[in-house]
Amino acid sequence: MADKEGITLIVFSGDLDKALAAFNLAIGAASMGMKVSMFFTFWGLNVIKKNEGSIKSKGLMRRMLNAMNRGGPKRLPLSKFHMMGVGTRMMKGLMKDVNFPQLEELMAMANGMGVKYIACTTSMGMMGIEKDAFIPEVDSFAGVATYLAQAREGQVNLFI
Amino acid sequence: MADKEGITLIVFSGDLDKALAAFNLAIGAASMGMKVSMFFTFWGLNVIKKNEGSIKSKGLMRRMLNAMNRGGPKRLPLSKFHMMGVGTRMMKGLMKDVNFPQLEELMAMANGMGVKYIACTTSMGMMGIEKDAFIPEVDSFAGVATYLAQAREGQVNLFI
Amino acid sequence: MADKEGITLIVFSGDLDKALAAFNLAIGAASMGMKVSMFFTFWGLNVIKKNEGSIKSKGLMRRMLNAMNRGGPKRLPLSKFHMMGVGTRMMKGLMKDVNFPQLEELMAMANGMGVKYIACTTSMGMMGIEKDAFIPEVDSFAGVATYLAQAREGQVNLFI
Repeated sequence: MADKEGITLIVFSGDLDKALAAFNLAIGAASMGMKVSMFFTFWGLNVIKKNEGSIKSKGLMRRMLNAMNRGGPKRLPLSKFHMMGVGTRMMKGLMKDVNFPQLEELMAMANGMGVKYIACTTSMGMMGIEKDAFIPEVDSFAGVATYLAQAREGQVNLFI
Repeated sequence: MADKEGITLIVFSGDLDKALAAFNLAIGAASMGMKVSMFFTFWGLNVIKKNEGSIKSKGLMRRMLNAMNRGGPKRLPLSKFHMMGVGTRMMKGLMKDVNFPQLEELMAMANGMGVKYIACTTSMGMMGIEKDAFIPEVDSFAGVATYLAQAREGQVNLFI
Repeated sequence: MADKEGITLIVFSGDLDKALAAFNLAIGAASMGMKVSMFFTFWGLNVIKKNEGSIKSKGLMRRMLNAMNRGGPKRLPLSKFHMMGVGTRMMKGLMKDVNFPQLEELMAMANGMGVKYIACTTSMGMMGIEKDAFIPEVDSFAGVATYLAQAREGQVNLFI
């Protein structure tokens, strides 16, 4: 691991704008030959959930949480100006207008360049989310020890 | 300091979810033998305030701010779905349900493992918060120079 | 670059409280002899916009976005307790009260100490913001590759 420079990104946020920033960084780093690991935790798990299907969880409270907090890259709100979806739709229009790739295209690019996606098992357990809720590109399911082992070797470590 | 690897965490946020993430990282790092320093600043000061008692500050505006921004680990809201406390109470219930420790238990564990808590004196001065507003586990009161001296030696530095 | 220690700050947020934290860190690091680079991206571009004048953009949607998202250091809201400007004005009053410099004074100090301001060209393109919308202290306009080249050499890298 020490012979190749590394970057780790903790994606804590489930907001579209922060996810766009995270994948821009990931793609930039991968194209410079860096090893990139993205750790999705808490609301950030929404970024790597499937757009389709519903999440089966046990218990009324978990079902309510997962219904409100549905996730999937198509559903992420902006952290500002979401305005019941109007602002977020506008931002996606602006991106299209200047031929800037949408989040899902950035995710496909990052995956194609070897960026690793790790889902946080601690958050999954807390929220009652099973492995099959996530897109197949997720490379592994792990906790804080896996993150720290990589971060201590990394040149750049960010919490987003 | 150079012979032991270090991690520093700036806890800027006063949200429960981000505080949980910060203490999970801190406990994970401490259990791997790393030196961990947590710098609480701005809204993050709320995490290390006492649950009991009231904050005495000078001037009407500071008293108003500290009444609204009461703090203490029991009172922190979620950054999403707080819903006047209903969502936050639900999340605490979900955590209990899977035997995940509450924030105050994580804080006791981190403290027992030698994690250092530093309160930012600049934010304290701005907001009119005195030392006796904080839990006794706080190790020191310091500013940005102390943070930077540790961060430049650290392997992992995050802003939460 | 390797002979002088460096710190990089990504300023993603356009909130006053986070901008204050970023400039406190920048000034602290510069006064310790570190090379400091601040990368302003997404909402963070608001921090380095001019207070005066209006932003000319093409297309109705971009004009609407830039009208809502006006920016300039005088206009930044707090991330909490903004309350239609009342809370933010109160916080500025508290800062004045303890002789704590306002954001614009911190920015002037940082600039005088050699802190570099870089505006993210990707965000500018997406939002339709031209170079002349920014304060003259901005040193350069660049993308993720420039950030990563500096961050991989830096001792401290934070995402704010």
